Amino acid sequence: MKLSTNDKIASLRNLMKKNNVTAYLVTSSDFHQSEYIGDFFKTREYISNFSGSSGTILITKNKSFLWTDGRYFLQAERELAGSEIFLFKSGLKDTPTVQEFIKHTLNKNDTLAFDGRTISYKLMLDFKNAAKIKSFKLNIVLDLVGNIWENRPELSKEKAFILEDKYSGEKAKNKIKKIRILMKEKKINCHILSSLDDICWLFNLRGKDIKYNPVVLSYAIIFKDKSVLFIDKSKLSENIKIYFKDNNIEIKDYHDFYSYLNTIDKSSTILLDYKKINSYIYKNLPKEVEIINEPNPEIHMKSIKNITEIKNNYNAHIKDGIAMTKFIYWLKTNILKIKISELDVVNKIEKLRSEQPNFIELSFETIAAYGKNAAMMHYLPNYETYSFLKPENLILIDSGGQYLEGTTDITRTISLGEVEPHIKKHYTYVLKSLIALSKVKFPHRTFGGNLDSIARNVIWEIGLDYRCATGHGVGHLLNVHEEPNILRPSASCIIHPDMVTTIEPGIYIDNSHGIRIENETLTTKSFVNEYGLFLEFETLTFVPIDTDAIDLIFLNEDEKNWLNNYHKMVFEKISPFLNKDEKNWLKEQTKNI
Amino acid sequence: MKLSTNDKIASLRNLMKKNNVTAYLVTSSDFHQSEYIGDFFKTREYISNFSGSSGTILITKNKSFLWTDGRYFLQAERELAGSEIFLFKSGLKDTPTVQEFIKHTLNKNDTLAFDGRTISYKLMLDFKNAAKIKSFKLNIVLDLVGNIWENRPELSKEKAFILEDKYSGEKAKNKIKKIRILMKEKKINCHILSSLDDICWLFNLRGKDIKYNPVVLSYAIIFKDKSVLFIDKSKLSENIKIYFKDNNIEIKDYHDFYSYLNTIDKSSTILLDYKKINSYIYKNLPKEVEIINEPNPEIHMKSIKNITEIKNNYNAHIKDGIAMTKFIYWLKTNILKIKISELDVVNKIEKLRSEQPNFIELSFETIAAYGKNAAMMHYLPNYETYSFLKPENLILIDSGGQYLEGTTDITRTISLGEVEPHIKKHYTYVLKSLIALSKVKFPHRTFGGNLDSIARNVIWEIGLDYRCATGHGVGHLLNVHEEPNILRPSASCIIHPDMVTTIEPGIYIDNSHGIRIENETLTTKSFVNEYGLFLEFETLTFVPIDTDAIDLIFLNEDEKNWLNNYHKMVFEKISPFLNKDEKNWLKEQTKNI
Repeated sequence: MKLSTNDKIASLRNLMKKNNVTAYLVTSSDFHQSEYIGDFFKTREYISNFSGSSGTILITKNKSFLWTDGRYFLQAERELAGSEIFLFKSGLKDTPTVQEFIKHTLNKNDTLAFDGRTISYKLMLDFKNAAKIKSFKLNIVLDLVGNIWENRPELSKEKAFILEDKYSGEKAKNKIKKIRILMKEKKINCHILSSLDDICWLFNLRGKDIKYNPVVLSYAIIFKDKSVLFIDKSKLSENIKIYFKDNNIEIKDYHDFYSYLNTIDKSSTILLDYKKINSYIYKNLPKEVEIINEPNPEIHMKSIKNITEIKNNYNAHIKDGIAMTKFIYWLKTNILKIKISELDVVNKIEKLRSEQPNFIELSFETIAAYGKNAAMMHYLPNYETYSFLKPENLILIDSGGQYLEGTTDITRTISLGEVEPHIKKHYTYVLKSLIALSKVKFPHRTFGGNLDSIARNVIWEIGLDYRCATGHGVGHLLNVHEEPNILRPSASCIIHPDMVTTIEPGIYIDNSHGIRIENETLTTKSFVNEYGLFLEFETLTFVPIDTDAIDLIFLNEDEKNWLNNYHKMVFEKISPFLNKDEKNWLKEQTKNI
Repeated sequence: MKLSTNDKIASLRNLMKKNNVTAYLVTSSDFHQSEYIGDFFKTREYISNFSGSSGTILITKNKSFLWTDGRYFLQAERELAGSEIFLFKSGLKDTPTVQEFIKHTLNKNDTLAFDGRTISYKLMLDFKNAAKIKSFKLNIVLDLVGNIWENRPELSKEKAFILEDKYSGEKAKNKIKKIRILMKEKKINCHILSSLDDICWLFNLRGKDIKYNPVVLSYAIIFKDKSVLFIDKSKLSENIKIYFKDNNIEIKDYHDFYSYLNTIDKSSTILLDYKKINSYIYKNLPKEVEIINEPNPEIHMKSIKNITEIKNNYNAHIKDGIAMTKFIYWLKTNILKIKISELDVVNKIEKLRSEQPNFIELSFETIAAYGKNAAMMHYLPNYETYSFLKPENLILIDSGGQYLEGTTDITRTISLGEVEPHIKKHYTYVLKSLIALSKVKFPHRTFGGNLDSIARNVIWEIGLDYRCATGHGVGHLLNVHEEPNILRPSASCIIHPDMVTTIEPGIYIDNSHGIRIENETLTTKSFVNEYGLFLEFETLTFVPIDTDAIDLIFLNEDEKNWLNNYHKMVFEKISPFLNKDEKNWLKEQTKNI
């Protein structure tokens, strides 16, 4: 029997009562603050039926609430329908944050509970502070959703693998050495890592524990003289065990991590990142240790791609360009001939990518959103809800691949026939916005927020905006969203040479249409003068931008030149890998406007 | 007998020896962290002969150092010539900060000393931290420069005055009430203010203690049931004393402030701002009090101009526009007839402003920089160093006034004849940059840094940049530089409706030319839609922008339209106040391009 959301919440309330819990919090997180999580960790989706990637549930004695952001407002309304859960739309002016709401709602002697492994220590500090001010209690060791979840999926058992030097470009030994130099400078003798992409980057380790993110569930501790990796040993071949031994990395079981923390020398100075470690890690450390709370140094180091990664990444984008160009050809030439659904689009794209050598998996779930579905920024068709395409209007397709050579992320919005003039105008402004940022040459001290507004300002010109970042960092055969580089209004990260960042402005009009055009870029050195080093974004994505949806009246000569040069490059790089029909079509698609 | 800088340093070293001081620090600050300071406080200038507005001196047993920034490198070299003082050029890659240098230089049992009244508590925390790490001692109660300074100027004795309601727009009583509501919300029973503009805004008090800044030397404490103002009573008329009594503001002597701090109730929760209070204030507080370190709430409140201030400010800008327009007319029509120096320009502008009703003083020292002098962003002509104008090239004039109706700040760069094509190009790009930001319509959640880059990007387009902010907040009959609104790459302040902010991009080429065009703006509401409230900058400055220096090839139609509309408005507002010749000239200057 399938339990309703309200049934599940009722069961949870029974457990809350037994445990003297006034309010129970369920987040979207695994134990590693991962953005994408394995099925075992999907407690928030289980309890609420809301399947978006980001959202927080709070259940009190007689009410329940979901917070999620603009990407998911429509989806959340649909998935919560019929349940008691009230939707808080994060980011809107009158919406309290989870922290504000809890601080306001809980009172003296109440208890706020959650599974401390799913809450970062940084967030935990907010709750601690609120608990102090309002005199309520915290219980951080209750996995109540886990207790009511029958047939909960198991933790992943997928095999791990080691990235060869020709793909990683730098030996783990060398990376660890760099970390130890930093530790020595700051008189740190212990560095705790729980973020999976940081661990995998450092050890050149990859796996399949999280769909779309080739990481391995693990924790790691770097000491001055050895490293310890906590991992399910059944995932490791004998060769990998030898590799770890050669690299002076001791292997312990994944589940032994928390008890190991207790054994760390009390006089240690420990480097860790409050934003990355969960509250339960902090709780298990000896009280006496000195803690240096700083961003994991791995975050910056892995964001600066090495020469091998850059070279390989270029090849990954050629493969991705071939797959996507073939796909657009197929779509454009078949839309009048056969019945095509959004799911067919998703499957066709995966098939075309999978035909490319060294393809591993998609880098995220493909978004194929026809017509008004595209107004939902992260709409995902599924077997219950999907639309058929018609030979008119636009389809937005956002997808990417994981190849041994790197990770890709690309969006194209494609016209399938007649497009209304005001939608063409919006399409053209999104393109103008992409071009504006693609052309910028900026000093090497510019923040993400400065670059964000250069793209966003073009959309502001027609009185619109978009409720998401303009772009984000991309991992290398790792997470498709990678820190620290991000382009959003508040971003204070400096954009450095050799970072990989997307540019993806958009326009989303509820119940009407959605447009996004996304390229990946590499930051390269442009020139040096008395103002220092200037950088620019070199476009890595080689896929035609649909000119059928452009209203030329809104493009100036500079913008037309940019697009023509881009298309010239796309044709040069991609056409050699196409058949005759595809090639002729691409010639036409990339001709000068 | 005039003592040389080295003589003064020698005397200071004698005192250092007597007091067991290893290194003595002298800053540019008064006791209130003011940007501009009265003559009494110019200890740094006395000891070093360096007269720039910003700089720090450190004197050790056998060496001495000045830190100052790019605006003052040339001036500092000139003014330090012949002395033992070594110049550290702040902001250059290899220059240590004062804090870094002290941390590196001082060792166990050494003593760093300074007058704690001239160092913010925020900066003091850095020294405390360094002292802890390096085990050196701090002595913060030594005013050694004061001890050797014969004929030190007295503290200002200028009379204070109260701003009438028709100028302030809000009674002090009401402002204090708002502060108390905030205090109550945060359970604060005592709020300490030492920043002069915050105090003067709160009490509607003005004076003449600092040239260009109509403030009064004072400290203030707001309790739940009364306020206490520490001020030289000789500055107050009987009427002002009655005004203070009516507003429940107790008057105590300026010099009694520090001893009064000791008497504050030990159980108090005190709101203060580490960036604003000096270290000696902190030292004099009872150890037991609880401190809430937050930006003074007055900073935000006074940045949002009320309806009276906005209306009056408009009139102040009409007056300023008349004075500046008359000035430009005079300059343009006399440059071929009479010999004009930069000092003549300074004097003419002050004379024309002073002819306007309710003019009080200039809002800062007038910058009149001809030709290559303008490459120095803050060049000030003086009786020793100034240039004569020729009927060619550009002169940059940055000036402003204090009127009872408000504070102004405006820059125009004016061509006096032939201008080289590449300089015209630079002039046109500075104008494009001004227009780009003047036209932006942005959501009411946009940060200063986002807006900065929209102007700066135009200058980046030709491979250049400028080493200063794009704009800053302006006080209302207060400081010409006012927090929190600022437009610079790192600025994380939200730009709110009814803030007054300058837009002043520029291009400065060493030994060649300097261009800046600056308007003041008021943030106004533009429209509301599903993305919330959008704002825009309404230009407040009504002074023609010299079209003679424009190269039209670089302006697009939108930019020409913006300039034509702006000039139409300037003519409408200013021409009624001009004589016939001036009016005809302005008609020509503001005609459509």
